Amino acid sequence: MSKGHEIRSEIAWSTPDRIGVWGYDLTRELMGRVNLGDMGFLEITGRLPDARESTMFNALLVTLVEHGIVPSTLAARMTVAGAPEALQAAVAAGLLGLGSVFVGSTEAVARLLRENLPDPSIDVRLPDIAARIVDEHRQARRILPGLGHPIHKPIDPRTPRLFVIARANGFGGRYLALMKAIARRAEKVHARSLPINATGAIGAIACEMGLPWQACRGIGVMARAVGLVGHALEELRQPLAVEVWHRTEAEASAAARGRPRGGKAAKSTGSPRRAG
Amino acid sequence: MSKGHEIRSEIAWSTPDRIGVWGYDLTRELMGRVNLGDMGFLEITGRLPDARESTMFNALLVTLVEHGIVPSTLAARMTVAGAPEALQAAVAAGLLGLGSVFVGSTEAVARLLRENLPDPSIDVRLPDIAARIVDEHRQARRILPGLGHPIHKPIDPRTPRLFVIARANGFGGRYLALMKAIARRAEKVHARSLPINATGAIGAIACEMGLPWQACRGIGVMARAVGLVGHALEELRQPLAVEVWHRTEAEASAAARGRPRGGKAAKSTGSPRRAG
Amino acid sequence: MSKGHEIRSEIAWSTPDRIGVWGYDLTRELMGRVNLGDMGFLEITGRLPDARESTMFNALLVTLVEHGIVPSTLAARMTVAGAPEALQAAVAAGLLGLGSVFVGSTEAVARLLRENLPDPSIDVRLPDIAARIVDEHRQARRILPGLGHPIHKPIDPRTPRLFVIARANGFGGRYLALMKAIARRAEKVHARSLPINATGAIGAIACEMGLPWQACRGIGVMARAVGLVGHALEELRQPLAVEVWHRTEAEASAAARGRPRGGKAAKSTGSPRRAG
Amino acid sequence: MSKGHEIRSEIAWSTPDRIGVWGYDLTRELMGRVNLGDMGFLEITGRLPDARESTMFNALLVTLVEHGIVPSTLAARMTVAGAPEALQAAVAAGLLGLGSVFVGSTEAVARLLRENLPDPSIDVRLPDIAARIVDEHRQARRILPGLGHPIHKPIDPRTPRLFVIARANGFGGRYLALMKAIARRAEKVHARSLPINATGAIGAIACEMGLPWQACRGIGVMARAVGLVGHALEELRQPLAVEVWHRTEAEASAAARGRPRGGKAAKSTGSPRRAG
Repeated sequence: MSKGHEIRSEIAWSTPDRIGVWGYDLTRELMGRVNLGDMGFLEITGRLPDARESTMFNALLVTLVEHGIVPSTLAARMTVAGAPEALQAAVAAGLLGLGSVFVGSTEAVARLLRENLPDPSIDVRLPDIAARIVDEHRQARRILPGLGHPIHKPIDPRTPRLFVIARANGFGGRYLALMKAIARRAEKVHARSLPINATGAIGAIACEMGLPWQACRGIGVMARAVGLVGHALEELRQPLAVEVWHRTEAEASAAARGRPRGGKAAKSTGSPRRAG
Repeated sequence: MSKGHEIRSEIAWSTPDRIGVWGYDLTRELMGRVNLGDMGFLEITGRLPDARESTMFNALLVTLVEHGIVPSTLAARMTVAGAPEALQAAVAAGLLGLGSVFVGSTEAVARLLRENLPDPSIDVRLPDIAARIVDEHRQARRILPGLGHPIHKPIDPRTPRLFVIARANGFGGRYLALMKAIARRAEKVHARSLPINATGAIGAIACEMGLPWQACRGIGVMARAVGLVGHALEELRQPLAVEVWHRTEAEASAAARGRPRGGKAAKSTGSPRRAG
Repeated sequence: MSKGHEIRSEIAWSTPDRIGVWGYDLTRELMGRVNLGDMGFLEITGRLPDARESTMFNALLVTLVEHGIVPSTLAARMTVAGAPEALQAAVAAGLLGLGSVFVGSTEAVARLLRENLPDPSIDVRLPDIAARIVDEHRQARRILPGLGHPIHKPIDPRTPRLFVIARANGFGGRYLALMKAIARRAEKVHARSLPINATGAIGAIACEMGLPWQACRGIGVMARAVGLVGHALEELRQPLAVEVWHRTEAEASAAARGRPRGGKAAKSTGSPRRAG
Repeated sequence: MSKGHEIRSEIAWSTPDRIGVWGYDLTRELMGRVNLGDMGFLEITGRLPDARESTMFNALLVTLVEHGIVPSTLAARMTVAGAPEALQAAVAAGLLGLGSVFVGSTEAVARLLRENLPDPSIDVRLPDIAARIVDEHRQARRILPGLGHPIHKPIDPRTPRLFVIARANGFGGRYLALMKAIARRAEKVHARSLPINATGAIGAIACEMGLPWQACRGIGVMARAVGLVGHALEELRQPLAVEVWHRTEAEASAAARGRPRGGKAAKSTGSPRRAG
């Protein structure tokens, strides 16, 4: 194999008596000293969080772990039904549904805020930025990410809790203020209730913490993997997928069952069109 | 990178003006000359099928493409609901459910027949082999693969069709006879109807064709990928996943919704156990 | 479960003695009569192809089955290394890499051609449309899909073969002509060789066949699933993944192995930051 | 949809102003109070861990997060190369390789210990149980799970650390003793060094904690998902997959490149075997 470019990873290495993870000694500095959320912060930033960051980051993750019965948990449960021996496949199947529809908004909020306020220390009027963002979205007929919720009304109860934790840990800054300004402006312009939802709060706090917006999807994936394990294990103990399947199949094919295609007779008289 | 073992693949190569696939010239010998099922045979055996093998192999694949609404198509459709931009992820999610419960039996039949009749040209009495197989399974309380069907009664209509195609193409031999002997013996011993189902017929025909039993799962995967594309595309046009989700969620959490845990009050009075 | 919207699928149903697939009787009209590629056409369009469509559609699929050692086959082979018992997981892992970088261009070409020539029967000058497309892409600094190839020079040998098959089967029409006009214009404007590659030819032919552009990714997925089965089976027989892993790991962590983090001593003196 | 069986899940529910997760109020009892590892414990056991359990369980997870460049991280990185827009797909692809070869042993150890010591309070001589286990494996030519390591010698450094944490938190009991007895017996019988590796220690501690053995694969999945996010993000910043691909492809097809199949001429003279 001739060499083209370098092959290099900074993440982990092993020697006969030591294991390095991002330069930390796994056994001496990590095991028994940090929690799984701290490892998530490490994998995203390359360093361990301090105590405030640990509390905040774990709160973001904990918020995203569970959503109950949603398409991704149903995909996982359907996979358990067919392959109960492969829990990792069920969790993988569930993660695959975390695309644009359900988890894109945390990333979209972080990106929007970061791009419109690249340097939070600059002295700019946040309401002006908010107004411009809301107007641009309205003209482009684009939905503002991070606002509103189909179930939680009049507000998303996770949002005030996230903001309390943020302020208590030194993350109540300009990005939260900008997100609030966007919500206020949006409600005024669209004349309806548009409170910041959990993904909006998480996106703003991620910016506050200095995390790159590209990491937001990773935060969602880490958290949801934990929840999907729970659903896969519950499916093994207390299944619902097979019942959902049977009911769905019965209803979905009710109209078509037994009827031949168009005006074709049930018995085909066609000669072989082509061999196999 | 120091070399340990060899890295070698026989499957495909490219030069500026030619592409080899299993040694065949892609543009001159494959494109416009063979069909997708033939490519499947090529990928499994390393050679193109003759006309009889092509007809037979394509018939096996065609049998396995569609199963309507089943757990794997529901997993695919749930993934479309969350990630409509990633069709390949929806198909992947659907394939993950093809594990031991639903597709293991073609492989199990092929392995059973091959291990009990390693050389079909040897002169042995098939009813004796069948009797031993049925007795061993009964004593070990193991279900015989390839027999019976929850919906198709009194027989699986795909089986006689597969056997007709097999005989017409020179694949009506000892493995089919052995499978039939097993079914006859099983019905007698268990005193109930146990006709050969499609996976039993396919497993037997795969042995007849000289395919390794390990390839049977591959045959199922190739075929189901085609069907899953169809379901994913239908979900984009005529969705059902979101409706299934809403109904399932409403029923699944009906008993628990709003109720706090055990005797815990809704308002938690616990002090913070640990930061983050 | 209270009903909201309808749950309905047209694809397949089963009765005790019949199986309908898109309204066709599986045993009488499909098994032994059509090939796997025809089933792919059926799943995309809802009807079986005629003889010309079957030849053309199978040629598109056959073109896309094999690419040798590429990221998606390596992902599949790495999965076989860890989970040799789950072939369907290996194929699924390989399909997940078929995203924007490697398979988006067939879809992009079909969409571009369809949107710029919605009705091929309208009398418009194709060179004018081509010129506008090339100019728009140049001004937006967007790469034109379907042109050029890193390995095949001076042309992609699959393209003339696809066009020959297309013309021989009645698919040599306006979309092929438009794609050629785009290539000619692009070469002139960018002053370099930009021949139509296989994905460009396939995208144009898909339009010619009247297939929706959204189906192009499905065509790629169906074909690649077949190729991935072949690679997964070869990995079981003649593995390369473990060797690739060992060489990559050795080189990737060579620089970091054994070195502690920054100025931190190898022995951590830090007190436990937080329990667990 | 007619009802057959019940559809029920205990995991989570939402009302307009509250979210329940395993009966806990998400905003009041979980967010800002527990960490991601605690949520993992909750998903597996249905209750939050106490402080000792939290420390221990997080230590198990932290041990399993990172393994550097291994087949599953390479599968994830190959998927990033093809689909950089779909981080969840890359993590899913990486999880699929966590099958029998690499992560089965934690589960195997837990199952082995639990089945041989169903009730740790019973007064039995552990060396006798250990001797029987080692002898049975030797006679059946089965490898004892949880012992030895290809890189870490003379011991796996994670094991003593895990046992220290276990004893410090009240988990240094009969299952750890049994695992140690098995290791001692195995070394004697096989006359070579066979120290308990990390998966053996984790399996034993999982039993000590009262976790069902089926949950062990879930622990591995939760932890590895975090590590895979890190690798996927590093691949976006500092790629290696494309270089690995190019080198592997060049070497893998070196022997076959350009050579036609067997004695077949490069130019095929065969007539079209079958349409399409």
